[in-house]
Amino acid sequence: MKKHNFSAGPCILPEEVIKKASEAILEFNNDNLSLIEISHRSKPFVDVLKRAKELVIELLDVPNDYSVLFLQGGASLEFLMTPYNLLKKDGKCGYINTGTWSEKAIKESKKIGETLVIADSSDKNFSYIPKDYSIPNDLDYVHFTSNNTIFGTQFNHLPESNNILVCDMSSDIFSRKIDVSKFGLIYAGAQKNMGPAGATLVIVKNKVLGKTSRDIPSMLDYKIHIEKDSMFNTPPVFPIYVSMLNLQWLKKNGGINWIEKVNKRKALKLYQEIDRNKLFEGLANINDRSIMNATFKFKNNKHQERFDLMCVKKGINGLKGHRSVGGYRASMYNALKEESIDVLIEIMQQIEKENND
Amino acid sequence: MKKHNFSAGPCILPEEVIKKASEAILEFNNDNLSLIEISHRSKPFVDVLKRAKELVIELLDVPNDYSVLFLQGGASLEFLMTPYNLLKKDGKCGYINTGTWSEKAIKESKKIGETLVIADSSDKNFSYIPKDYSIPNDLDYVHFTSNNTIFGTQFNHLPESNNILVCDMSSDIFSRKIDVSKFGLIYAGAQKNMGPAGATLVIVKNKVLGKTSRDIPSMLDYKIHIEKDSMFNTPPVFPIYVSMLNLQWLKKNGGINWIEKVNKRKALKLYQEIDRNKLFEGLANINDRSIMNATFKFKNNKHQERFDLMCVKKGINGLKGHRSVGGYRASMYNALKEESIDVLIEIMQQIEKENND
Repeated sequence: MKKHNFSAGPCILPEEVIKKASEAILEFNNDNLSLIEISHRSKPFVDVLKRAKELVIELLDVPNDYSVLFLQGGASLEFLMTPYNLLKKDGKCGYINTGTWSEKAIKESKKIGETLVIADSSDKNFSYIPKDYSIPNDLDYVHFTSNNTIFGTQFNHLPESNNILVCDMSSDIFSRKIDVSKFGLIYAGAQKNMGPAGATLVIVKNKVLGKTSRDIPSMLDYKIHIEKDSMFNTPPVFPIYVSMLNLQWLKKNGGINWIEKVNKRKALKLYQEIDRNKLFEGLANINDRSIMNATFKFKNNKHQERFDLMCVKKGINGLKGHRSVGGYRASMYNALKEESIDVLIEIMQQIEKENND
Repeated sequence: MKKHNFSAGPCILPEEVIKKASEAILEFNNDNLSLIEISHRSKPFVDVLKRAKELVIELLDVPNDYSVLFLQGGASLEFLMTPYNLLKKDGKCGYINTGTWSEKAIKESKKIGETLVIADSSDKNFSYIPKDYSIPNDLDYVHFTSNNTIFGTQFNHLPESNNILVCDMSSDIFSRKIDVSKFGLIYAGAQKNMGPAGATLVIVKNKVLGKTSRDIPSMLDYKIHIEKDSMFNTPPVFPIYVSMLNLQWLKKNGGINWIEKVNKRKALKLYQEIDRNKLFEGLANINDRSIMNATFKFKNNKHQERFDLMCVKKGINGLKGHRSVGGYRASMYNALKEESIDVLIEIMQQIEKENND
């Protein structure tokens, strides 16, 4: 049975990407060698890396004075690289705390230097995006998490600040239009809308670097990775290749403009059902709802067992909410088809009907 | 045409591993989902990670008081994690410099604390392994690189020291028997004998950790990775899966005892030809020759063009020497079949014959 994969990440990828990735493992570039047994410095792979970079630049309209990197270590290593590269020895930085991942970023930054939490939605278990906070003007940077996978909230406006903006976009990059020129640094683990686990995308404005007077370890130094064009050490060949395929798929289908419309339509449909259906309620503040991850629950838990069974029967995968929130989480990443949303809504309506009878 | 893949890494993997890896991309665990679109916390992947760890323990006979980790960032991140985790704030460590990778490790360690180079073979372009050096007894650890891919040298005996031994085994782990109990820390990038690029194996003795009085960033802290059982952040799912398949292949065929015999036979055969053939000469000191990477060159460069063409015609891939050494490098990792060595020897003999006529 075909699965409707609502997994929060690693997550669904387009069927044609999966198919091409599988083929490249058997043979790559018509060369009687697998993608995973060739040198990362061979022309075929150097071309892959170049193409992946070009696609990022084209799809996100990255300005000329930015560098695009493919690294390892996920957002978790970026939590550390951010202050290492941007926080001056005697400087301070500000973080907006909107959930588990922001908290982790804050924790690592505090190990490196003075780190202020300038806004915080922990008082209501991160069910909203903070508003009406003021940001000091003397920060080395302001960090925020654009989409909070666990809580189902998302920034709809950029924080207003004259400081350098840094954003962890792990769970919504390539899902909607962004203005890269507003940011000093954007990073994202691949395993949502970019590709499989094991690669990290970094987009950094060149001129924000080199100002901390820190002796940065090479693997944590964006300038070294820029100088070596993401080849300072052996890159994660397969995750980068699949990311390239996935970005090709996105471009071919109409790019960010297209996918943003699709994603908004999918999310609107599901949220309308959550709000309409008498058995369910949404968990995130309505104005801050994420178009990537919808969190919701039963008003009365007694329906849960029956609903879970119905989901299994219809091939729905990965709908369980994160343990810190409970309930359900429908992750609607780029590759999730609208028909999967329809199937979920059908089940929601069916269980409502059963309980109306 | 079938390729004889002498690539230095990423490198050849067994055909059955490649095939199973390709299949898992299409569908994993009979579950209508690809390996790369399931949650890393789903039971099927948790089982993969567990199995991979068990295979490492079994194949290398890892004692109970050691932890086995699968991380990201390759040896290059370990260069930094080693001093962070083992070098006391007021302590010092010693490195044996046997080539490019040792030099890189030394450079990173110097950024963290006092780092002594206790032996060095740079005077002869790293063509030998240093002997007859003395190691101070008050070091926090002694670091060496067991096999030097670029120069074709390999340690045949452990450095004699009462200090904690740390070894970068990226290019010879799983190729020969080692006594893990002699080491405090072993690390290895996957992309030689373990799997594809993108995963790093760490084997660390638990009791050597927690003694530096450093506030270690979480992603660089072995204790945190141990506590989270390699799931502190999203692990590189595909590289770990393929590593598991590859270790299964190794176990099924007879484990380290078997592969060590095979590897020694392959290397002996090739070195015998290098020494016998009037046109060629080896580049590494005979007693320090690596069983993984044989470096050699023509005594007279005039044969090179013809030989390169003959290699292409016979499907030989990746034989070019590293730019810092020149000549040729035949990497003979675990999955390289003896017949590939035979084909190479055949060409070497043919060109000798042509020049005898």
